[in-house]
Amino acid sequence: MIEEENGVDARLQAISAAIRVVPHFPKPGIMFNDISTLLLRPKAFRDAVQFFVDRYRDMGISAVAGIEARGFIFGSSIALAIGAKFVPLQKPRKLPCEVFSETYELEYGRDSLEMHVGSVHPEDRVLIVDDVIATGGTLCAAMKLIEKTGAEVVECACLIGLPKFKGRYRLNGKPVYILVECRR
Amino acid sequence: MIEEENGVDARLQAISAAIRVVPHFPKPGIMFNDISTLLLRPKAFRDAVQFFVDRYRDMGISAVAGIEARGFIFGSSIALAIGAKFVPLQKPRKLPCEVFSETYELEYGRDSLEMHVGSVHPEDRVLIVDDVIATGGTLCAAMKLIEKTGAEVVECACLIGLPKFKGRYRLNGKPVYILVECRR
Repeated sequence: MIEEENGVDARLQAISAAIRVVPHFPKPGIMFNDISTLLLRPKAFRDAVQFFVDRYRDMGISAVAGIEARGFIFGSSIALAIGAKFVPLQKPRKLPCEVFSETYELEYGRDSLEMHVGSVHPEDRVLIVDDVIATGGTLCAAMKLIEKTGAEVVECACLIGLPKFKGRYRLNGKPVYILVECRR
Repeated sequence: MIEEENGVDARLQAISAAIRVVPHFPKPGIMFNDISTLLLRPKAFRDAVQFFVDRYRDMGISAVAGIEARGFIFGSSIALAIGAKFVPLQKPRKLPCEVFSETYELEYGRDSLEMHVGSVHPEDRVLIVDDVIATGGTLCAAMKLIEKTGAEVVECACLIGLPKFKGRYRLNGKPVYILVECRR
């Protein structure tokens, strides 16, 4: 049991260590947590996805909504593993049919997210996935998109977040789960 | 044996049928093959990834390069399944460190792709993944990025392509594999 728990810590440590911190990107003063270096380590990448899969496998999630673009990397893999549908939340003018749209503030600017009308139904139980949570603005916009359909947001899952997001943090009343703390 | 082959055909048929064709997007005259409807069908989505995994599992692929954004969905899942690293090829100003860059022509405009220097090594055997091949311009740019590192591009894999790409089609001398023909 203790060995198993040490194993978990060691794997989380390896995931955290594989994330590169780049100062002053995309703007002066921002410490950018770059997951591309994690993706270059197949074992750490697989472990990260597996932590999410283990958490969500039995939570009755019917849809995983991934935020463009890096949320697609984790979101689609989680959806495949738990047998849920995958709903891409995309930047403006990428989705070809009728969309719901939400604009939000970023740490460094503003942006919008769109979701195809008809991709999520009122009876869906939705997990929202992104790579990083910074201010939470992107996730809030994603939640609003999902909630327009009447579906339930079960949780938001991010690979990386500020220490304050660890534990029982909630955003708009919904739980946020982060796997590792970002380094600043 | 015949049953198994029918099984393959039926699964490919289901994948093809799950792709929505949207006329005049993003410009008049373009028939857009929308994979978001495929992603809403967990079995068809999983089958599509599995076809690629079965093809590439024993080809000694050490890196899967996925093209932003929808190439991330298939590329990352394939990389995880075959134990290769995943290399995101991103739109300009998304990657925080030193990059290789290539500009290319689209069916409807022009764009650039970037790849982190150091993410692919000369000894890597690389699979490039995108959702759709139209003119081949995006894939050519991706190949040039990989070849700048001295690594070998083993193949380009796309979920959807024109009938002419079926079979032994080559782009810049490299094989292109498509799973299903696009509908126009």
